[in-house]
Amino acid sequence: MNEHDVLHFLISLVSLLATARLFGEAARRTGLPLVVGEISAGIVLGPTVLGHISPGVEAWAFPGGPAKVMLDGYTTLSVLLLLMLAGLEVDLGVVSRRGRSALLTSLLGILFPLAGGLVLGFLLPDADLVHPERRLLFALFCGVALSISALPVIAKTLLDLGIYKTDIGLLVMSAAMINDLVGWLCFSLLLQPMRGAALDVGALLVTLGSIFAFVTFALIVGRRAVDAFFGQIDDEHPASPGRMLSLIVVLALLGAVCTLYLGIHAVFGGFVVGVAVGDSPRLREHTKAVIHEFVTNIFAPVFFASLALRVDFASAFDLRLCLLVLGIATIAKVLGCSVGGRLGGLKWREAGAVAFGLNARGAMEIILALLALEADMIRPKMFVALVVMALATSLMSGPFMKRLLSTDTEDEELAALLQRGAFIPDLSAAGASEAIAELVSALAPSLGDVAERAGRCVVERERVAPTGVGDEVAIPHAAVEGLQRPLLALGLARDGVDFDAPDGRPAKIVILLLVPPGAYEREVRILASIARHLLPEAARHELLEAKSKADAVVTLSRALPHHEPAPKIRVPET
Amino acid sequence: MNEHDVLHFLISLVSLLATARLFGEAARRTGLPLVVGEISAGIVLGPTVLGHISPGVEAWAFPGGPAKVMLDGYTTLSVLLLLMLAGLEVDLGVVSRRGRSALLTSLLGILFPLAGGLVLGFLLPDADLVHPERRLLFALFCGVALSISALPVIAKTLLDLGIYKTDIGLLVMSAAMINDLVGWLCFSLLLQPMRGAALDVGALLVTLGSIFAFVTFALIVGRRAVDAFFGQIDDEHPASPGRMLSLIVVLALLGAVCTLYLGIHAVFGGFVVGVAVGDSPRLREHTKAVIHEFVTNIFAPVFFASLALRVDFASAFDLRLCLLVLGIATIAKVLGCSVGGRLGGLKWREAGAVAFGLNARGAMEIILALLALEADMIRPKMFVALVVMALATSLMSGPFMKRLLSTDTEDEELAALLQRGAFIPDLSAAGASEAIAELVSALAPSLGDVAERAGRCVVERERVAPTGVGDEVAIPHAAVEGLQRPLLALGLARDGVDFDAPDGRPAKIVILLLVPPGAYEREVRILASIARHLLPEAARHELLEAKSKADAVVTLSRALPHHEPAPKIRVPET
Repeated sequence: MNEHDVLHFLISLVSLLATARLFGEAARRTGLPLVVGEISAGIVLGPTVLGHISPGVEAWAFPGGPAKVMLDGYTTLSVLLLLMLAGLEVDLGVVSRRGRSALLTSLLGILFPLAGGLVLGFLLPDADLVHPERRLLFALFCGVALSISALPVIAKTLLDLGIYKTDIGLLVMSAAMINDLVGWLCFSLLLQPMRGAALDVGALLVTLGSIFAFVTFALIVGRRAVDAFFGQIDDEHPASPGRMLSLIVVLALLGAVCTLYLGIHAVFGGFVVGVAVGDSPRLREHTKAVIHEFVTNIFAPVFFASLALRVDFASAFDLRLCLLVLGIATIAKVLGCSVGGRLGGLKWREAGAVAFGLNARGAMEIILALLALEADMIRPKMFVALVVMALATSLMSGPFMKRLLSTDTEDEELAALLQRGAFIPDLSAAGASEAIAELVSALAPSLGDVAERAGRCVVERERVAPTGVGDEVAIPHAAVEGLQRPLLALGLARDGVDFDAPDGRPAKIVILLLVPPGAYEREVRILASIARHLLPEAARHELLEAKSKADAVVTLSRALPHHEPAPKIRVPET
Repeated sequence: MNEHDVLHFLISLVSLLATARLFGEAARRTGLPLVVGEISAGIVLGPTVLGHISPGVEAWAFPGGPAKVMLDGYTTLSVLLLLMLAGLEVDLGVVSRRGRSALLTSLLGILFPLAGGLVLGFLLPDADLVHPERRLLFALFCGVALSISALPVIAKTLLDLGIYKTDIGLLVMSAAMINDLVGWLCFSLLLQPMRGAALDVGALLVTLGSIFAFVTFALIVGRRAVDAFFGQIDDEHPASPGRMLSLIVVLALLGAVCTLYLGIHAVFGGFVVGVAVGDSPRLREHTKAVIHEFVTNIFAPVFFASLALRVDFASAFDLRLCLLVLGIATIAKVLGCSVGGRLGGLKWREAGAVAFGLNARGAMEIILALLALEADMIRPKMFVALVVMALATSLMSGPFMKRLLSTDTEDEELAALLQRGAFIPDLSAAGASEAIAELVSALAPSLGDVAERAGRCVVERERVAPTGVGDEVAIPHAAVEGLQRPLLALGLARDGVDFDAPDGRPAKIVILLLVPPGAYEREVRILASIARHLLPEAARHELLEAKSKADAVVTLSRALPHHEPAPKIRVPET
């Protein structure tokens, strides 16, 4: 390694990072996903634009040799950490709790696109394939590529709509989790025969068996071991996430090494480790936030920008193929998930909203497309078509969900709910469960004999996914059997109560919401309304000053600002 | 890049990271610096141990070729980020405020070791030199190597002693800052002629001029631009450090690229950028903490462990050379700094304490030694001697400082101080300045006509270096002209007041301390006593419950636990 190589490595790195972040921020300002800007940065710096204008400058900024190998090392780490981060979002507790409807939605949401992808794979002319003689494998890849979804994008959309923590939000998330686990597993399996000359069923079965063993081990033994270990670290140094950080990264690297040994792609190991680690209730949201900050701001932009260094997007753009892939992907996914959701007990509108949520492909699809390109599974044209499909499906998911769920609730509802609800100006609780108990007892007159059940449901729901939303607000809630109409109680806690919010701050405004079972749409509307009302900092301050229920009602009945609410809490954005 | 290389890169990375973190934690538990454990990990995994036991395994875990190049890319980034982190600790405001004494201390603290190093360089036999014909350059390197100090280690030592935020602590820190800036500059200059055949005075002058221009530009223009830009980012997204993170890393990379172009080492650019960025009052301690967590837990351990992969520490260990280097380094540094401090107006004891503080070399010396080894400036023997010297001087600095400052204050003093001071059970202040004003007015009867001046001094001192120490405690303090004896006021703020603590938490316990000018030792003793008293979480909880001055006095007069206080706030540890 000499100084010249180091210089060029640093030049490549800084030009990718700086441009990707700049373009990413510009994209965000115009309402597009970060990843659109980041990929555009690569398009500008790579063969598509700079390479055409001035090939000399491009070759100087991104030379081959050791500088490129170092950059490859960096992007390899980046994609590994990105998948780990996606895994951290997966919450197996949520999945198991949503049970039947999540399983049905995700199952049909995989099968329909799989079928659509197979059809696509068999329809495309030989010229679009790298190895026409291995059309079956290609078709299988298309099936997997169309069936995958994108947890982080979905989470972001749900957050934007203010329904991340509702029941329907959790349903979308858990269906997406099952979806991703299955999708990445299938893709990893496909990579192996794609490289070898022939499909060896025996070898495939051995790989499948060892992957199964790895996943089972990671999710059962590994998960518990990590949880116990976290407990120990947390007791010793509650404030500092340093040791957990090291441990998580070491485990992700180990997972990657394991899966590489098993013959499947390293990212799958990172993802599985992320799932196992993220599931520990002892992993603090704050530690996740530190990892998230670093990965999305230092690693991910370089990775996404470097994508477009490999391909000339202009010459590889094929409108026919793009429309074909986008059409089949969207129709198959939306149809499959809607039918699945309906069978799982949702209304058609709700099922449709879930389906459009799951239709978002985002960064995950792009990573998968890149790996397929690197493995010589697909041509640049198909790569570009998949990238376009990923971005288009992500962009359409929010507007469609919003339309179908009609979250534009009338603003007076919240004030009316509080008016017949309860208000506690000074919660004495030290923990989340106590605060919930206090608020439930304040509602006791209206609850009657379901009071006890209500308390139990909310605490249990809280355990599944904490409802601290950041900015010192928490919205514990649950559907309660036997309840006839929604009930709301507002409590203020000057000292704050820990509801495990992503920003780590204890909640000073605690809003308890109880809804009748199955009233998804109503719940969504109320929670979205709460989110909108409490977004402006001034409103939160005013609410905290409320001395009586009347004060609080006045604050909540005030007109809202006209602009769209920007999410203020940490969201996985790519 | 094929899968085999990626696999081996990940194997090297995970074995270094996991072992270094494990050994690092073990070292910390036994009271040694983290870096001792991290280097030991490399000694075990490298040629010194594993290479002797099983060369095959070592070659498998750390192969050459692309896997090594990727690892080199990672360690290059690590050292760059480490130096940037060291730069972030540098506070030019503190340096300029300490003025004369800091300048004198650091000046003589550079000149004496420089002279000592020159003598060493001329005394050593030809066999110890790589190029005996260029003995002058080698001697100059020895001088620089002996004169450098280690900000992070020094900061950690001061924190351990509980005197980081005292005037004497700031003096040590600012002398070390000047020291490092000069030392790294000199070293960077030396690297160039060491590579070429002859010393070209013209080229050297050009380099010197361009470095001067770079440093001036970074510290004047760059610093203001960054500050303005930070202000904008901060207004838009106060909670999320994401954009600042990207910006800081991009600037560090740019700085490195600039200095590489100017013909000096990349780390100097990272360091200067760190100084420029870290100086912005808008850089939040929380953002620094996120960078710190990631760099010290994910990057630094791999770098320090990888050091010992290059050298067989056992065969390159030369006791004579180690003792010689350690002896000259320590004597020259302690003598120089003591004389400088005395001339700057300190008492001999205090000057001695400052000198032993500055004698710590730590990670900075090790980085410098590695760069010299890579540039073929020194032999492995000299490298090992410098590493040993770095670790030994770091280890001895704490005990000597403690002894000289005799920080073992009698425990009743604090209670007595509070007894005749003031107590405010419920501060109404929203900001640090208001809180200080409230506490100063509570002391007004004892302060008389210096009250106004006292308030001004404390607020000004706060601006120089915030006194939030973490764990919801802040200790605003200052030396006040005209004051006859120390005065203390304790305020409790249930809502917390932001004193810009490293852990980002607002202070609920605010202790105002006013001391007569020049009473360094007294101030040190009292602050150390406060730190010790408030370290146990239970004590802090009890204090927060205090309703009257009598309650608080009882809590503070309670016996302390016997074990040494472990620093609970974020400290730069390597």
